[in-house]
Amino acid sequence: MNTHKIPDIIIGRLPVYLRALQQLSENGILTTSSQELGEIIGISAAQIRKDISQFGEFGKQGTGYSVPFLIERLRDILKVNRVWEVVIVGMGDIGHALARYNGFTNRGFHISMVFDNDLQKVGQTAGEYEILDTAVMAEKIKQNKIKIAMLTVPAAFAQEMTDQLVKAGVKAILNYAPTSLNVPSHVHVQYIDPATHLQRMTYYLD
Amino acid sequence: MNTHKIPDIIIGRLPVYLRALQQLSENGILTTSSQELGEIIGISAAQIRKDISQFGEFGKQGTGYSVPFLIERLRDILKVNRVWEVVIVGMGDIGHALARYNGFTNRGFHISMVFDNDLQKVGQTAGEYEILDTAVMAEKIKQNKIKIAMLTVPAAFAQEMTDQLVKAGVKAILNYAPTSLNVPSHVHVQYIDPATHLQRMTYYLD
Repeated sequence: MNTHKIPDIIIGRLPVYLRALQQLSENGILTTSSQELGEIIGISAAQIRKDISQFGEFGKQGTGYSVPFLIERLRDILKVNRVWEVVIVGMGDIGHALARYNGFTNRGFHISMVFDNDLQKVGQTAGEYEILDTAVMAEKIKQNKIKIAMLTVPAAFAQEMTDQLVKAGVKAILNYAPTSLNVPSHVHVQYIDPATHLQRMTYYLD
Repeated sequence: MNTHKIPDIIIGRLPVYLRALQQLSENGILTTSSQELGEIIGISAAQIRKDISQFGEFGKQGTGYSVPFLIERLRDILKVNRVWEVVIVGMGDIGHALARYNGFTNRGFHISMVFDNDLQKVGQTAGEYEILDTAVMAEKIKQNKIKIAMLTVPAAFAQEMTDQLVKAGVKAILNYAPTSLNVPSHVHVQYIDPATHLQRMTYYLD
C-alpha cells in the first residue's frame, strides 16, 4: 500500500471514481463492478481495475467491489475523510456562484472566507458570507491555517494574489483566472478555464 | 502533418500552450523558446518541444519559435481559427456567470443562446441574452446547427438534458453538473467540477 508511489495521472482519475461511487451509494447500491463503474464514467473496465489495484486488493473475482468500502478507501487516499477549509479570492460572478454552490458538501470542503479588493464589495454578503478585504487576507489565512484557495480574480491580478496566498501558507490553488500561475514546486495548481476545456473538444469536431 | 494521429493527452496540452502564446503576443512578444513557455506553463521544455514536434517543424535550434506563427498553427489544429456558437443550458449562478464571462473573446467561441426550464426565468435576461425555454431548445439548436453546449443544470437533470442535446446534434458538452454523463462515442464531454479538481490536490497535502 505504498500510496505515495501512485502516478499523478491515476490520482487525477480517483476523484472521478469517488464521485461515481458516491452517486451509487446515494442510490442505495452497495456493490459494483469495474464494468458498471466504467459505463458510468466512460473509462474502460480494465483501466479502472488497474488503477484501483495500485492501492491494494479490493473485491474478488466475480464478487465485485463493496461500494462503501471503496468510498472509504478513496476518501482516505485523497485525504477528504476530513473537511478542508477553503477561501475564495475575487467576488465577481464566478466567486459569487462558488460561494453559493452546494456541491462541496460531503466531498471534503467547506468555504471558510471570501475576499475581494473592491471596497464597494467589502462588507456586502455573498451567499452566507461577508466579503472581506484582501488587505487582511494573508493575516486571516495564516491565523486559520488555511491551505486551499479558489482564485476567481481577473487574469491581470492572478499572479499578485497567488504570491500573497503562497506567502500566507496556501498549498493548493484552484485557478479560474484564464492565465498560468507561477508557484513554488510545493504548491499545487489546478486550472478551470472554460475556453481551454472547449478548445480541447473542438479538435475532434468537423 | 498527420495531425489526426496526435494522442489525446497532447491535444489536452495544446490549448494551454495557445493561451500562454496569446498572452505573450498581447505583451508584444514575437519570439519565444520552449524554456520560456515551460516556465510560464509549468511543463518541462523537453515535453513542450516533443509535443510541438508532433505536428510539424517549428522554430530552429537556437532561434526559438515565432509566436504569431505558432498561434496560427495551434488555432488551426484546434479548429478555433473560426468562431463556434455555443449554448448554455441551465441559468443558475454558474449559467449567469458564463453568460456574462468575457473570456471567450478571441478564443474561438461565442455564446449564442441560453436556456432554462424554469418559467420564472424564461423571458428574463442574463448578460445580453434573453433566457429561452428548454422546451424549444432542441428545435433552436437544430435550426442553428449548434454543435457545442455548456451544461450547468443540477446533477439530477444533467442526463435528461444531455440526451436532448445529443439528439439535437450537439457533439461537444462542457459539463458543470457534478455527475458523469452517458453519451454516444461521437460526442465529447469535458468536466468542470470544482470538488473533483480540489480532491486531485488534497492527495498531495499534509
